[in-house]
Amino acid sequence: MMLLERDLIQSVGFRNVRENGRVTGFQFRVRMPSYRGMAASLIDGIAVRVGNLVDVPADVPLWTFGGTTYSLQELWNSDGVRWQLEDAAIVTVPFDGGLPQGVHEITIELRLRMSYIPLEHQPSVYRANRMVALAPEGQGGPFQYGVSLYSYTGDYGTVLDLETALAAVAETGATGVEILGEGHVPNYPQPSAAWTGQWFSLLEKYSLEPTNYGSWIDTRLHPGRSMTAAEGAEALQRDLRLAGALGFKYVRPKIGVTSGDLIPDPIWTESVERSLDLAHELGIVICPEIHSPTPIKHAVVDDYINLIERTGTKNFGLLIDTGIFQDRPIPLREGETRETRPAFLDGIGVDPADLADIAKYVVFVQAKFHDINDQLEDQQIPWQPVLQSLKDAGYTGYLSSEYEGERTPWRSIEQVRRQHALIRGIAAELG
Amino acid sequence: MMLLERDLIQSVGFRNVRENGRVTGFQFRVRMPSYRGMAASLIDGIAVRVGNLVDVPADVPLWTFGGTTYSLQELWNSDGVRWQLEDAAIVTVPFDGGLPQGVHEITIELRLRMSYIPLEHQPSVYRANRMVALAPEGQGGPFQYGVSLYSYTGDYGTVLDLETALAAVAETGATGVEILGEGHVPNYPQPSAAWTGQWFSLLEKYSLEPTNYGSWIDTRLHPGRSMTAAEGAEALQRDLRLAGALGFKYVRPKIGVTSGDLIPDPIWTESVERSLDLAHELGIVICPEIHSPTPIKHAVVDDYINLIERTGTKNFGLLIDTGIFQDRPIPLREGETRETRPAFLDGIGVDPADLADIAKYVVFVQAKFHDINDQLEDQQIPWQPVLQSLKDAGYTGYLSSEYEGERTPWRSIEQVRRQHALIRGIAAELG
Repeated sequence: MMLLERDLIQSVGFRNVRENGRVTGFQFRVRMPSYRGMAASLIDGIAVRVGNLVDVPADVPLWTFGGTTYSLQELWNSDGVRWQLEDAAIVTVPFDGGLPQGVHEITIELRLRMSYIPLEHQPSVYRANRMVALAPEGQGGPFQYGVSLYSYTGDYGTVLDLETALAAVAETGATGVEILGEGHVPNYPQPSAAWTGQWFSLLEKYSLEPTNYGSWIDTRLHPGRSMTAAEGAEALQRDLRLAGALGFKYVRPKIGVTSGDLIPDPIWTESVERSLDLAHELGIVICPEIHSPTPIKHAVVDDYINLIERTGTKNFGLLIDTGIFQDRPIPLREGETRETRPAFLDGIGVDPADLADIAKYVVFVQAKFHDINDQLEDQQIPWQPVLQSLKDAGYTGYLSSEYEGERTPWRSIEQVRRQHALIRGIAAELG
Repeated sequence: MMLLERDLIQSVGFRNVRENGRVTGFQFRVRMPSYRGMAASLIDGIAVRVGNLVDVPADVPLWTFGGTTYSLQELWNSDGVRWQLEDAAIVTVPFDGGLPQGVHEITIELRLRMSYIPLEHQPSVYRANRMVALAPEGQGGPFQYGVSLYSYTGDYGTVLDLETALAAVAETGATGVEILGEGHVPNYPQPSAAWTGQWFSLLEKYSLEPTNYGSWIDTRLHPGRSMTAAEGAEALQRDLRLAGALGFKYVRPKIGVTSGDLIPDPIWTESVERSLDLAHELGIVICPEIHSPTPIKHAVVDDYINLIERTGTKNFGLLIDTGIFQDRPIPLREGETRETRPAFLDGIGVDPADLADIAKYVVFVQAKFHDINDQLEDQQIPWQPVLQSLKDAGYTGYLSSEYEGERTPWRSIEQVRRQHALIRGIAAELG
């Protein structure tokens, strides 16, 4: 069962439509507002406005059910065509050239004919409007685009299941998907064969490849004692094997820390070194993240690079979390004060130019962000200089969305769409 | 995949616990607040308060994962026991005699040990509180108890899938489930064999029987022409067959109307009469609803009774929607005025004593309601006289919840629990 967004106007599915290589209009999906599905001949049309660009009366849009597209008159004549409760209708509006990239205000007035309501109250009219990002298009410069299911934290398992999440990812134009082993693999670390089968068949269905797999080395696993390097290696290797079995190419171990500025537990070196042969065998690169408040110029980063230089391994690299470039504060939450929350939430503002020095070790980028507004402006991360520096440094790998903003249900889906529209647009214009 | 409620404290699962016939405490389910599941040895306990009845420190509650129950110390010593992201933890609080029936305020302070956060900010503490109805208990008088999936309108398909919904129904102690054919049967009217198989296996898993199936006779199916009695019969028979295949015993056809006071289209008589043999063959009773603003003393009801008397059929009866007894108004919604909305939303206040005259024809009761507050008081429906009249009239069939209040996500789940706690309690005390 696929799940639908609560709003009648779904964000997933809002996109320009091409016919014979020409953009002829746009479409979006609408959830049935009634408590039942119904014969499509009971539809009395849908008027659609998009900002001040489009304003069409109720009989103009076309309707798609079960893969077939109908005019309103064709629906009225139809028998057996249905708008099922579990399926959003696809509404197509002819609009030559289509809509420009960005966030648009969609307004609808949908009319349905209810036989059990007195005629004087008919048709039933449902009004809705919503700001939605058009599905991103365009090459997007030198990078590959992905989404981490971490973006959907809070939504995953409450309003999103695996397939609904992957469908949302694919519709941004992303080709890669990132997961957290302990977050997204049911019955971790032993998923059922049925689940693994479903995983691969969904990847194929939505044309997605597995990118990075997040794991943990939980150095505080048992109260009162620390973890040995052998135990750390065992934890890492458990995840390397599972990541390999699920097709991932990168594993980001999140290592326990021993200080306020996130110095990793010293067991990390031996835990990683003991695992390099296995990583090589599985074709996986282990890549700890450089994550705020740790900047690029920091002893932790030097230590990681030392390991690469010392061992000559190709199975260890750096993962950059773009949260280090945050240069404007995350708004205070209710009851929060600047004094009581960690200072790094104001942004540590690493200079993107610092990437140049370490770029050759960078294998993956988590595109962390918090809020992109209706004008498609990121409120915390300066994407233009970040992407320019990545390009200048020769990075051509994944930008994998990590939405970390407000956890209002369903918000993450739309925010990820906005980020992809924004960064693809900037990347296409880079010098 | 089962879906979890958004609140950390789940309403489904809050219940007293019996051991060897004695109530020894209560339990509830908690959603993992982190973005990943984790080893259960990383739990640092959960302090629990319930109103002013219970207040226990973090090391007292027991934890159940994968069917095994552990003390906090046992979790700390454990290896391989996990709190998976997709599974709510079951927290059991010893409390001799258990909690009284009703709505309780549960307050938790949950502590988790994160290895990747500096020690000065550890453990991570998650606070939550919620008003939740204890799972209803007790015989509940002469009636049977059920839930219509209509109650979950808006939630079904967005935050509830079929299994999650049936689990919520079962946990109220209900034994019957009601559906809408066009609402809850995917690919209606031709569900896949796989779906039908899942339907029956879930009924068995949750010990539920199919009760009533809602259908429509859409007399306005095509603009500009009315429906013939033959077409009406065809529509009804399509649903009778599907309802029979899914195990239902009652079918409520919602018939198109021709007047402001809901007089059904005259085709109803012939549509029904032509279908009585099929209903008999399938063991189904066809039962149109007596629904506000139509009272019990009304020509429509007389017509239904005439059909029964005239034909002598056992396959036609009356369904009472308890909305007719509503004696206090539904609050105005934002922007609504008493002038612009139908007057019957203030309640038509049918005297429950009117049931006596028609009771012998009543085969099913939809227990419509809108809002039950934290004191377990219904704000619109006077359950005491309604249930007393039903009992006095000798009704022993189903009371099938139809929640029709605010459609805030997840609210329906808790409201249905409250209704069952309320009406079971009243029914047990009836004279």
